[in-house]
Amino acid sequence: MLPFFVILSYYSIMISLDGKKLSQKILAELKQEIADMAKKLRLAVVVIGQNPVTQKFIQQKQKAAQFIGVDFRIFPFEETVATDELRKRIAQIVHEKKNTGVIIQLPLPEHLSVQYILNSVTPEKDVDMLSARSIGNLVAGKSEILPPVAGAIKAFFEEYGINYKSKYITVIGAGKLVGLPVSLWLLNEKTTFSVLRSTTPNISEFTKKADIIISGVGKPKLITGDMIKEGAVVIDAGTSESEGPSTGLGTSKIVGDTDFESCAEKASYITPVPGGVGPVTVAILFRNLLTLAKAQKK
Amino acid sequence: MLPFFVILSYYSIMISLDGKKLSQKILAELKQEIADMAKKLRLAVVVIGQNPVTQKFIQQKQKAAQFIGVDFRIFPFEETVATDELRKRIAQIVHEKKNTGVIIQLPLPEHLSVQYILNSVTPEKDVDMLSARSIGNLVAGKSEILPPVAGAIKAFFEEYGINYKSKYITVIGAGKLVGLPVSLWLLNEKTTFSVLRSTTPNISEFTKKADIIISGVGKPKLITGDMIKEGAVVIDAGTSESEGPSTGLGTSKIVGDTDFESCAEKASYITPVPGGVGPVTVAILFRNLLTLAKAQKK
Repeated sequence: MLPFFVILSYYSIMISLDGKKLSQKILAELKQEIADMAKKLRLAVVVIGQNPVTQKFIQQKQKAAQFIGVDFRIFPFEETVATDELRKRIAQIVHEKKNTGVIIQLPLPEHLSVQYILNSVTPEKDVDMLSARSIGNLVAGKSEILPPVAGAIKAFFEEYGINYKSKYITVIGAGKLVGLPVSLWLLNEKTTFSVLRSTTPNISEFTKKADIIISGVGKPKLITGDMIKEGAVVIDAGTSESEGPSTGLGTSKIVGDTDFESCAEKASYITPVPGGVGPVTVAILFRNLLTLAKAQKK
Repeated sequence: MLPFFVILSYYSIMISLDGKKLSQKILAELKQEIADMAKKLRLAVVVIGQNPVTQKFIQQKQKAAQFIGVDFRIFPFEETVATDELRKRIAQIVHEKKNTGVIIQLPLPEHLSVQYILNSVTPEKDVDMLSARSIGNLVAGKSEILPPVAGAIKAFFEEYGINYKSKYITVIGAGKLVGLPVSLWLLNEKTTFSVLRSTTPNISEFTKKADIIISGVGKPKLITGDMIKEGAVVIDAGTSESEGPSTGLGTSKIVGDTDFESCAEKASYITPVPGGVGPVTVAILFRNLLTLAKAQKK
């Protein structure tokens, strides 16, 4: 529920969409439901090589898994593993009944054929929905789950009572992890939307008209306050490593696509980075795991 | 090549994109290539019940098949056939080696589960690209062919030298046969585009800015000249049955989504209906058949 003063002064009050809180709420629900299940859930995580940024994302997922009581099993591979060998091993991991869901941590080393490897996860276990078959099921309206980032954005809209179906949405970027799955979801949602690229020359012509902006480019300060209209909803799903001051642990800071300060002055709702879309995406990943687990039981 | 006077007076000269001519050109190329092949190609056409409009579309495909030397085999089913029985029979038709490609003529009778039935065509034979697996391959960038309507629009652009990759495109409608496959194609093409619905309240706000308009709603006169900008490219892939004067044979006339007269005054290129996207879509269907046939040989 929105507090009363928001209704009185809509444009002057900006609400920062609290991804940590929403994530915790979803995870708490999952924890309860998983505790009541006879079946033990396990998420298999295929990790190829080592990457400090990736490491951080894996730790976030691991922490969530521990909290809700899901076995989190990392299957590590050498950076130099060949595509065919990896496909064969992933097929075994997918086939293993104890693995309720399987994810392949991206990015992959450059020598590997990314989509070919992602396709080795069958839809029954594809919590990330990155295989061609899962994508096809999504577009054909035959999927029980959504790609995690799309599910996260939908969860924000539902949690904060943001009506998106009759709104004009601009999606910036069309990459495999954000823009593409979000666009596929919106195609099924009967919304009016535009897909912009980081190379689109006149991005602000679109963003200035948009009721909702969803960005997933990975380009810091791509969206500034002068590019959005009063009252816009700004969903920042971009991630870049900032070269600015570190978090103090020798690791770089993760930043989004928006200039938060200037956008916050005009937006009605905005997601921060970190603490916005990211944690909710992790929570939805585990909700997908639970949904698929139930379907497997049948 | 464009004639010289077009370059001199770009805005005042409108070119009607000749679908019949382009279709004949593509079919003539296919005829040649098929004549040189050892393998005999056959298109299996699953037809459920009877429908006069559908009948006309089937005849167009049959005529093209005869011209290029492809065996066109209709597999008729009663209107009342059950989903499971139909799925089983289609699986047999798909499995039959002599059938190089299999299409299911839409629309289906209302009691049938459309996507479930379309999914029974495997990607190796899915010339229409309507199964979830074919769609997934398309989105994942792993398809050698395009959905026929997208292939047809691309063929027009190539034939007439229309640069679409750096243009702003609006797609109106997101249905299974036009808007959805066109949007999926554009997602892969790195274009900037908007998806509008027939219910979008302010369609003209988008169409007035669009360099290229692709419409597939099935609503006569949805797009009028005042809704487009000077020099726009208008691709009309909508089909409705007109209630106006018939073609004289007791059948109704097929009309598109555009008001051709008023749009033609401002457009640089425009497709008529009939004689525009339709015939080229049929030609691309058979080009898809040939492409899949070659892949099957491997």
